[in-house]
Amino acid sequence: MGSIDADKKLQVLLVGSGGIGTMVAYALEKGSKAEVAAVLRSNFEAVFDNGFTIHSVDHGEIKDWQPTSILDSIPSVDKESWRAPYDYVIVTTKNVPDIPPSIPDLIAPAVTPGHTAIVLIQNGLNIERPFLSAFPTNPILSGITFTGAIESPPGTINHHNHDRSFIGVFNNPIASPNQKSRAIAAARRLVDAYSACGPNVDCTYEPDVPYSRWRKLLYNASYNGVAAILGMDTSRMRFTEHIIDELIRPLMREIRATAKAVAGVELKEELIESMITADGYDKFFKPSMLQDVEKGRFIEFENLVGEPFREAERVGVETPTLKVVYGLLKGLQFKARERHLKEVVVPRSGEGLRYGGHGKS
Amino acid sequence: MGSIDADKKLQVLLVGSGGIGTMVAYALEKGSKAEVAAVLRSNFEAVFDNGFTIHSVDHGEIKDWQPTSILDSIPSVDKESWRAPYDYVIVTTKNVPDIPPSIPDLIAPAVTPGHTAIVLIQNGLNIERPFLSAFPTNPILSGITFTGAIESPPGTINHHNHDRSFIGVFNNPIASPNQKSRAIAAARRLVDAYSACGPNVDCTYEPDVPYSRWRKLLYNASYNGVAAILGMDTSRMRFTEHIIDELIRPLMREIRATAKAVAGVELKEELIESMITADGYDKFFKPSMLQDVEKGRFIEFENLVGEPFREAERVGVETPTLKVVYGLLKGLQFKARERHLKEVVVPRSGEGLRYGGHGKS
Repeated sequence: MGSIDADKKLQVLLVGSGGIGTMVAYALEKGSKAEVAAVLRSNFEAVFDNGFTIHSVDHGEIKDWQPTSILDSIPSVDKESWRAPYDYVIVTTKNVPDIPPSIPDLIAPAVTPGHTAIVLIQNGLNIERPFLSAFPTNPILSGITFTGAIESPPGTINHHNHDRSFIGVFNNPIASPNQKSRAIAAARRLVDAYSACGPNVDCTYEPDVPYSRWRKLLYNASYNGVAAILGMDTSRMRFTEHIIDELIRPLMREIRATAKAVAGVELKEELIESMITADGYDKFFKPSMLQDVEKGRFIEFENLVGEPFREAERVGVETPTLKVVYGLLKGLQFKARERHLKEVVVPRSGEGLRYGGHGKS
Repeated sequence: MGSIDADKKLQVLLVGSGGIGTMVAYALEKGSKAEVAAVLRSNFEAVFDNGFTIHSVDHGEIKDWQPTSILDSIPSVDKESWRAPYDYVIVTTKNVPDIPPSIPDLIAPAVTPGHTAIVLIQNGLNIERPFLSAFPTNPILSGITFTGAIESPPGTINHHNHDRSFIGVFNNPIASPNQKSRAIAAARRLVDAYSACGPNVDCTYEPDVPYSRWRKLLYNASYNGVAAILGMDTSRMRFTEHIIDELIRPLMREIRATAKAVAGVELKEELIESMITADGYDKFFKPSMLQDVEKGRFIEFENLVGEPFREAERVGVETPTLKVVYGLLKGLQFKARERHLKEVVVPRSGEGLRYGGHGKS
């Protein structure tokens, strides 16, 4: 990141102003060290007319709130030569790299090479790779959040779980030492601006991004995937016991073995046991992919399950459970693709298909 | 089976007069070598009033048809001392041994020890075991059918796939040679009575029951299970290709390896490839467990997937895909149990549950 005047407010572009994104914007604006321009899509009209309504576990009841500006599309910094470059582009959209459009393409017009830090507040493994290739001179930062916040209806945010976030720097194998220290500085400056909103939120600099990402995968590659496939909340899974013993724990152990082999990350066995009961039993919690399946939306399984599986294959770790779960999630995503993407059309005849013939059994 | 007068009609009790069962009853009655008493449950009233209406690919259009008698419960041969014993009890219900009532308990009052042959026209492995224990002096026969017939609404049967059935004798390790030959004779006599209805149906004596059961498991442990989990017909699976490559074929290969190790049954590799495209692509066929899931019914996964998996474990064959599919199907069945069985109640608090605690993650 280029030099930023310490007196000037950080210029932030937020892409994905749903539940999580809006709470990030709110915290940054409340701290007064940043100005946020939020790109809105489905909720633009609602927020333009009435602002956001926020019921927040950390900030209380908020009516008719807007960030410094709202936009209905990604701005192009070339065309708007009058404005200062964005210091940060924060991405809080769902991560579905298998479904167009690609986020790097989408945000490119707003990114100033050598300056803008790109912050991915998204789950999963290897999500930084397309950004490292597309923006080789920009800091690419990792955001991991345990905040729970859902938007429904458009413009209304129910922020029900305490804001606890970790910001750090993705490993960039080709970055110079100078680039690396600039990236760390950018991460720390964002943590500072975020924390300025007061003691109600926990935003911390995360020095060990691989550890924190693999750790969260323990949950996301197990509970999140199985919940989506079975259509079952985590309390019911725990009540059955066999779903834990035969599916969830084996998946967590496969992630643990892969983390160690791929990244040298040590996830303790006790961590698995505490992760199994991490959700409040009385919450009957539905993980994000299950919520997406129930709403007929795309699921973000490629970086939660696909990438750990591919990494395991690459280094030769056996992940038989992950493999099947991944194959099934691909099937669920196919159903969503068929529903939403016009170009996916299942032919009525098998002619020309690899498995289109009619065998004799 | 005791001696049967060749001039007398075979006395048959049919348990499960849905699509398949009714077509079995119809073929036997049409051949005039058997008299069928059918036990009806949900369709008793409709059939009592108007008989069965049958649209049959083999027998044409049939109105107001009834077998020799219809019953609304299993008769007790002890109490009805005036009637001849049943020569056959034919069971065509869905096979859900994990859900009460148990079929052996249910049919026991109609079974004359040392005489009645019990015919299980049902899919899956080891389905004969509870009957061999409950009725050690009775022949236990295997029925495998490729007939397609569905009842909807009650009393109306759409018989859409040609009646092709195989009847043989389950292996009984403790049967005497005399018992074995009596069982074979009972199977052959039933084939004869079934075939008497004319050339439109194929009913054949099956000398190799293990082969024919493992062969059908190739399909039922793969397509049937995955279809139920994904909510997807077999044509869509084939269109995606990856569901075949990553799930269906691996499952079939695991069944093949298990069949060989457990029963010395040789299923050829080419059989797998032809089984993959066995359904007409243009049919968008939904296998039975998927139909059951869609109707919120119990699924018959224990003998289609659970038993082959347990057999594989017992002899040390690796079946990683089958294991996960089995675990997931158990989860689906749990959901059905919760919906249908009053005794399954998920507690709102985790107290006292093995995974009910609240961990710190």
